[in-house]
Amino acid sequence: MNFYDYVRNIQNFPKAGINFKDISPLLADKHALANCLSELVVLVGSQKIDKVAAIESRGFYFGTLLAHKLEAGFVPIRKPGKLPFKTIKEPYELEYGIDVLEIHEDAIEEGDRILLHDDVLATGGTARAACNLIERLGGKIVQCNFILELEFLYGIKKLQDHSVCSFLKF
Amino acid sequence: MNFYDYVRNIQNFPKAGINFKDISPLLADKHALANCLSELVVLVGSQKIDKVAAIESRGFYFGTLLAHKLEAGFVPIRKPGKLPFKTIKEPYELEYGIDVLEIHEDAIEEGDRILLHDDVLATGGTARAACNLIERLGGKIVQCNFILELEFLYGIKKLQDHSVCSFLKF
Repeated sequence: MNFYDYVRNIQNFPKAGINFKDISPLLADKHALANCLSELVVLVGSQKIDKVAAIESRGFYFGTLLAHKLEAGFVPIRKPGKLPFKTIKEPYELEYGIDVLEIHEDAIEEGDRILLHDDVLATGGTARAACNLIERLGGKIVQCNFILELEFLYGIKKLQDHSVCSFLKF
Repeated sequence: MNFYDYVRNIQNFPKAGINFKDISPLLADKHALANCLSELVVLVGSQKIDKVAAIESRGFYFGTLLAHKLEAGFVPIRKPGKLPFKTIKEPYELEYGIDVLEIHEDAIEEGDRILLHDDVLATGGTARAACNLIERLGGKIVQCNFILELEFLYGIKKLQDHSVCSFLKF
């Protein structure tokens, strides 16, 4: 299976000049979905994972699948105001301005071994903020795990103190 | 396992007067996560499913898990402007005003057997709009499948022409 055939290029989304990688075709095909999950699990190998943390919203597609497959719990990391219980917050820079991610303050226990997952590694700002949230709660990040990595954006530089694994590279 | 122990009540979220049911504890516990998935699959029984469609964002938690378990594809139904390819739109009423859901126009093929999933059935407005999107694309809704049903809101009335199954009732 050539997974690159299941990733669709959308020009100028979400704004002019951006060539968006759409994984909808991969999700819609039961074989591609199952095989992508298997490949993401291969990236983790035999490392013990207590919880998979994933970033809203596209990180949720494979976040719970990974948690279930790795026999781990699942922790959502969300945009401001979406999580109902007490949270801690972490700002991160966008091209113009600042956004914020949140995690429930009781989502991770001291020493929990965490797999961070998102669909795409781009500039790495979001993933870096997510790592900071996890570490502020005492979690140990075993791996930052992505379906796609946009290598020309060098997001990996923001995650240099962590193991970063991506399944598809662009 | 008493699943009700893994659902947390959050008073006045997302606004005053609403008693929000938070499934974060269920997601965070690997056994509760796995067992909840099994129970949701039991609701579907032996019915053949081609695709699981789930509603942003909390519907995504179990949406892809159900798709994988049922050997089906996955289709996201999202808020306006989030899906990158060509979409069709369906408005639905909120308490004050109108919101919109979208689905990719190529997400479903004529005659596809669809399981609609979301985390909670409340007033049923969102689920009704999602059903309309699926049917406009020629999909046949096999079941509307929820983790929680807030029975006192009678959401089931908006879905009377469909099979509606929920795992936990409040």
